Amino acid sequence: MKFKVKIIPIRSVRPTVIMTKSDADEIGVFEGDRVRILFGRKSSTATVQIALGFLERGVIGVCLNCAENLGIEDGEEIEVLPVPKPASFEYIRKKLEGKKLTREEIYEIVKDIVNDALTEVELTAFVISSYVYGMDMDEIEWMTKAMIETGETIEFEEGIVVDKHSIGGVPGNKISLIVVPTIASAGLLIPKTASRAITSASGTADTMEVLANVNLSVEEIKEITLRVGGVIAWGGATNIAPADDKIIRVEYPLAIDPRSQLLASVMAKKGAVGAEYVVIDVPVGEGSKVPNVEDGKKLANDFVELGRRLGLNVTCALTYGGQPVGRAVGPALEAWEALKAMEERKGAKSFIEKSLGISGILFEMVGKALNGYEYAKQIFESGKTLEKFKEIVEAQGGNPNVKSDEVPIGDKTYDVLSPIDGAVSRVYNDRVVRVARAAGAPKDKGAGVLLFKKSGFHVKKGDILFRIYAEKEWKLDKAVEIALKEPPVIVSGMILERYPYHRVM
Amino acid sequence: MKFKVKIIPIRSVRPTVIMTKSDADEIGVFEGDRVRILFGRKSSTATVQIALGFLERGVIGVCLNCAENLGIEDGEEIEVLPVPKPASFEYIRKKLEGKKLTREEIYEIVKDIVNDALTEVELTAFVISSYVYGMDMDEIEWMTKAMIETGETIEFEEGIVVDKHSIGGVPGNKISLIVVPTIASAGLLIPKTASRAITSASGTADTMEVLANVNLSVEEIKEITLRVGGVIAWGGATNIAPADDKIIRVEYPLAIDPRSQLLASVMAKKGAVGAEYVVIDVPVGEGSKVPNVEDGKKLANDFVELGRRLGLNVTCALTYGGQPVGRAVGPALEAWEALKAMEERKGAKSFIEKSLGISGILFEMVGKALNGYEYAKQIFESGKTLEKFKEIVEAQGGNPNVKSDEVPIGDKTYDVLSPIDGAVSRVYNDRVVRVARAAGAPKDKGAGVLLFKKSGFHVKKGDILFRIYAEKEWKLDKAVEIALKEPPVIVSGMILERYPYHRVM
Repeated sequence: MKFKVKIIPIRSVRPTVIMTKSDADEIGVFEGDRVRILFGRKSSTATVQIALGFLERGVIGVCLNCAENLGIEDGEEIEVLPVPKPASFEYIRKKLEGKKLTREEIYEIVKDIVNDALTEVELTAFVISSYVYGMDMDEIEWMTKAMIETGETIEFEEGIVVDKHSIGGVPGNKISLIVVPTIASAGLLIPKTASRAITSASGTADTMEVLANVNLSVEEIKEITLRVGGVIAWGGATNIAPADDKIIRVEYPLAIDPRSQLLASVMAKKGAVGAEYVVIDVPVGEGSKVPNVEDGKKLANDFVELGRRLGLNVTCALTYGGQPVGRAVGPALEAWEALKAMEERKGAKSFIEKSLGISGILFEMVGKALNGYEYAKQIFESGKTLEKFKEIVEAQGGNPNVKSDEVPIGDKTYDVLSPIDGAVSRVYNDRVVRVARAAGAPKDKGAGVLLFKKSGFHVKKGDILFRIYAEKEWKLDKAVEIALKEPPVIVSGMILERYPYHRVM
Repeated sequence: MKFKVKIIPIRSVRPTVIMTKSDADEIGVFEGDRVRILFGRKSSTATVQIALGFLERGVIGVCLNCAENLGIEDGEEIEVLPVPKPASFEYIRKKLEGKKLTREEIYEIVKDIVNDALTEVELTAFVISSYVYGMDMDEIEWMTKAMIETGETIEFEEGIVVDKHSIGGVPGNKISLIVVPTIASAGLLIPKTASRAITSASGTADTMEVLANVNLSVEEIKEITLRVGGVIAWGGATNIAPADDKIIRVEYPLAIDPRSQLLASVMAKKGAVGAEYVVIDVPVGEGSKVPNVEDGKKLANDFVELGRRLGLNVTCALTYGGQPVGRAVGPALEAWEALKAMEERKGAKSFIEKSLGISGILFEMVGKALNGYEYAKQIFESGKTLEKFKEIVEAQGGNPNVKSDEVPIGDKTYDVLSPIDGAVSRVYNDRVVRVARAAGAPKDKGAGVLLFKKSGFHVKKGDILFRIYAEKEWKLDKAVEIALKEPPVIVSGMILERYPYHRVM
């Protein structure tokens, strides 16, 4: 059926067209169904939305991104045809019945996810059935390969390419800012792509962005890596394993993190950048993604096996994830902490030991050193880590001479003090994140939480437990309210919680 | 955060607001999340869509239905707050982990489905986890009750209220047009609500609409039932068990029909209209929803047990569903066949026997007759069925004097002839439907298929097997093409299929 175009000035995540119920009936499509739009020699698919009392019959609303793709202008005529469900729909139905998928079937599904050829309901069905039934290692391998193949990849013709990745779940985990330059300064290549925060207070990409540009293309990532040895870029700016972001869009609102997807997502990103040696950081402990070492080992085993199938050498580091890494949580605070540690060649033990430990594993894997940790420590303490970091910052368009004192931190602060003498018995990951986010992180880069006392520290009454930073007064107020209601740092002997909580403002 | 309103002239199925990515970040919401809109004393929830390059920061696009609900005009100021996930989200997560839900949890979920408080992803998660894990009879009972309680209900202060329902899956099943007047003419009350076609060629509501108005309110359904004994209304025009339609919107595109939802959906509709005695028609046979008698019995058992828990007397009739009921498939053709049968007091055996059989079961259930079928047959053959049907048509605003010859049928026809002498070995339900829909049914009411020969009939070469009716030439062409490619009526000895199919046009 032919339609007259009316451009709707909305860019929707999914290309959308809007038509009357009558026209939809005429073509035989329902809300949410796909149609193919033909304009000259170009064609594109879009999802149907039904409009009432807005469009005339024979007129179709076309969203901006869809119109731009096809080069359509207002008032032009397009042909609209219903699209049969893609073949991958049958494979999703198969998974929905609990059956194992083949390599080809998984590839078709991933391809259609990347091309937005599945409706939201179909994509959700795939994610949930993968969650409920799980995937076996064959399926995970095929999923990973499909995610790599449906996106951009980097190939390095020379050099030893290594990488690191954390499965996340622990706040303040800014170790890449030390690991990447330490590794790079030893002559290895480390093209690190990182994420932005979804539910956390800062992703590595958010943190690095305080000091440099992280929106790099695949070409830039390769060029910088070859030139200075390392890079810390935002993966979302590239088209590396693009299926991942689309799958996360469904997982995040359901608060599910299927093991199969976790494995495939991490390893696809590492495989796509051509890494040969990879360390996976698996934080373990209460309040992290993996509650105990037993589960951590199982997951580690899966990572190693998946690596073997993909031709990647993988070592997993089970790390302590029961409280934040280092002291700072929030983009600028974390950048400040990392930079300051490199300047002073020392820092919070949990942060420095973890950074050098992960670096050391990579050095041992590639045969650079028998004692990798010591090797990394020498580099770090010699100042080479800072030197290389500055090169990376400069290569990414930042100011290489920036000092930690110059990192702009929010100027609204509130100190939470210990009400008693005692020792810190617990620092809650989730509460720290909640306070930091309420204070404005990750959007307000200067917002966050700086811990003064962590688990096991002795405190006196009146000592600062942590300081909240914010850029805006009202966000600070909100963060303080949350921090007092659900204290992130517990001094033993304290009342853990008051419920209900009333405070005279 | 406060926003200036820009009305977006779209009515979306889900109330939607559109804002810039920056504003969404500021509030802390993502695409697909819910927000609460406050305007004066009124408030409403809506789903967030992200717009790029269209709205300025601080301006929010509000869809028409949302704006109308709150009485907002262009340029006015509203407050927008993020909405925490509803409690029902945790219960959906629970079902996603395979755990049994409580009555209260199911009620919360159904209430939120009805109030559009769940996102599409959350609703899909609930439907799929119910499908994958199933629901036990407790959960199905609670689901049914919740569906009844969250919608409108009818209570009859007098009379014996009965009802019938078919689980669907067999084309041409227009028996309600005979069952309802037959039952009503014996003094029973039968407030029948019916569906429109989703994937079939005609729902009972589509068929009845050829002769009368089916868009009746709950008050009208009750009034007409009390006055003339029966009604055939479109359930979708009422607010009876409104959760059902919203659930179907997810099930339909996934082509799943969870047993729990089938049971709850049918029984909620029957319970809501106050029926005390209910017959459920379960078509069984290849190409219907229930492939064999064994499965049919299991399902019947569940219906009876669910009825017991709800205080409804339920009898299931396992009927033959291996080929269409009667000869006609398509709204006007089915109305014509039913009216003609009532006029002539006879008709296609499968149609008349089934209609009187179902009526008879109801008569026996309420104690009207020992031999219900004979009792129904007497009513039908005496002409009382037609007489009562005319009263119902008139009460629903139709012309009571309409004759079957006057029913407007599509004037574009094509006869498919038998290429050989033989006997009909198979009539495919799905193929008949596909041809009827291609011809324009159910939207073009005059479109459809009229079968001349059904399974077991002897045919001679050149006999008409079936006739395709359409209102538009191009739709007829399309239907003919499909009918020749995948023949709905197979004469034994014929080639069943040609693949690939090429035809010189």
